[in-house]
Amino acid sequence: MPQGKVEVVPDDGLTTRQRRRQPVLAVHTGPGKGKSTAAFGMALRAWSAGWPIVVFQFVKSPKWKVGEETALRALGEVPGGAPVTWHKMGEGWSWIQRPGTERDHAVEAAQGWAQIKKDLAAEAYRFYVLDEFTYPIKWGWVDVDDVVATLRDRPGSQHVVITGRDAHPALLEAADLVTEMTKVKHPMDAGRKGQQGIEW
Amino acid sequence: MPQGKVEVVPDDGLTTRQRRRQPVLAVHTGPGKGKSTAAFGMALRAWSAGWPIVVFQFVKSPKWKVGEETALRALGEVPGGAPVTWHKMGEGWSWIQRPGTERDHAVEAAQGWAQIKKDLAAEAYRFYVLDEFTYPIKWGWVDVDDVVATLRDRPGSQHVVITGRDAHPALLEAADLVTEMTKVKHPMDAGRKGQQGIEW
Repeated sequence: MPQGKVEVVPDDGLTTRQRRRQPVLAVHTGPGKGKSTAAFGMALRAWSAGWPIVVFQFVKSPKWKVGEETALRALGEVPGGAPVTWHKMGEGWSWIQRPGTERDHAVEAAQGWAQIKKDLAAEAYRFYVLDEFTYPIKWGWVDVDDVVATLRDRPGSQHVVITGRDAHPALLEAADLVTEMTKVKHPMDAGRKGQQGIEW
Repeated sequence: MPQGKVEVVPDDGLTTRQRRRQPVLAVHTGPGKGKSTAAFGMALRAWSAGWPIVVFQFVKSPKWKVGEETALRALGEVPGGAPVTWHKMGEGWSWIQRPGTERDHAVEAAQGWAQIKKDLAAEAYRFYVLDEFTYPIKWGWVDVDDVVATLRDRPGSQHVVITGRDAHPALLEAADLVTEMTKVKHPMDAGRKGQQGIEW
């Protein structure tokens, strides 16, 4: 996308430069493909800007998105490049020393969100991907009012991208950028299964 | 996205494994953000699968997508990783020795497409991003019937992702995967301009 022309200059007392440096909250939602993929694509830009990146993956299957993980981790190891941190709920969050033997996904999701709050407060990263984070909100595992207030009040210039279907209306309201991905046609409709390099 | 369950098993005489290895033609269209970004995100998966990647960028501004380019080129130089090739129309295609002093975008677009045809015939890559390729088709610079026939008959297992608004109906018809990105809300609506790391 090109740099667009601004249609309305808001009466907010900010210069264009100040406005330009405002942190962005983006939400990728809708039933189509590309929500997470576009978020990881944005991470490419963030990496190239030299911003420390973190991914919190609120999903369980180890197979999903392993390709993006491999590639972004490889970028994170390029000498002189920005670091990439990748947390996965499904394996037990990496900072939890003794994950319970009985998986309690609601507790894990809440632990993930608690860590995100800590990282935002500490300005630990510049670019956050909260992948599939709409679901723990939808299921009530994480309080949407807490999410919205935390993101609204986050310090510094920390950009956050949240992906997943059925984004909560309060989250959409709080977002600066919302894109809905609509499925028009999918190979599974024609009886194909996913394949490496395309689906993961 | 998870590996989904197939709802209909097609009566095409192929095994699931054969069907799984069929090359994919994906189109990302619609007025929203994320079309190119999701294509570059898919390139992360392709890279991690070890597939040689090529990007043909049918745009003119040198500023667009420079972040993705930097990051994907960095991946292309990771020792042992898959190579990444990046061609930009706006700078004059790299294989054209003496670009004309008078820029003729229609000719440049046709030259780009001619090179894509050569590369497809030679199976030069496994993953192609034809970025903003819907426009030269829309403007009649590249013949859509030639595009559809070439892609339909491409040899081997070469995956192709085409991005851009207003995708031609024949292209949508030929595609295996079509996702439409719809703009729901954009920071420019609030008078913000693009910023590094987010917009490019």
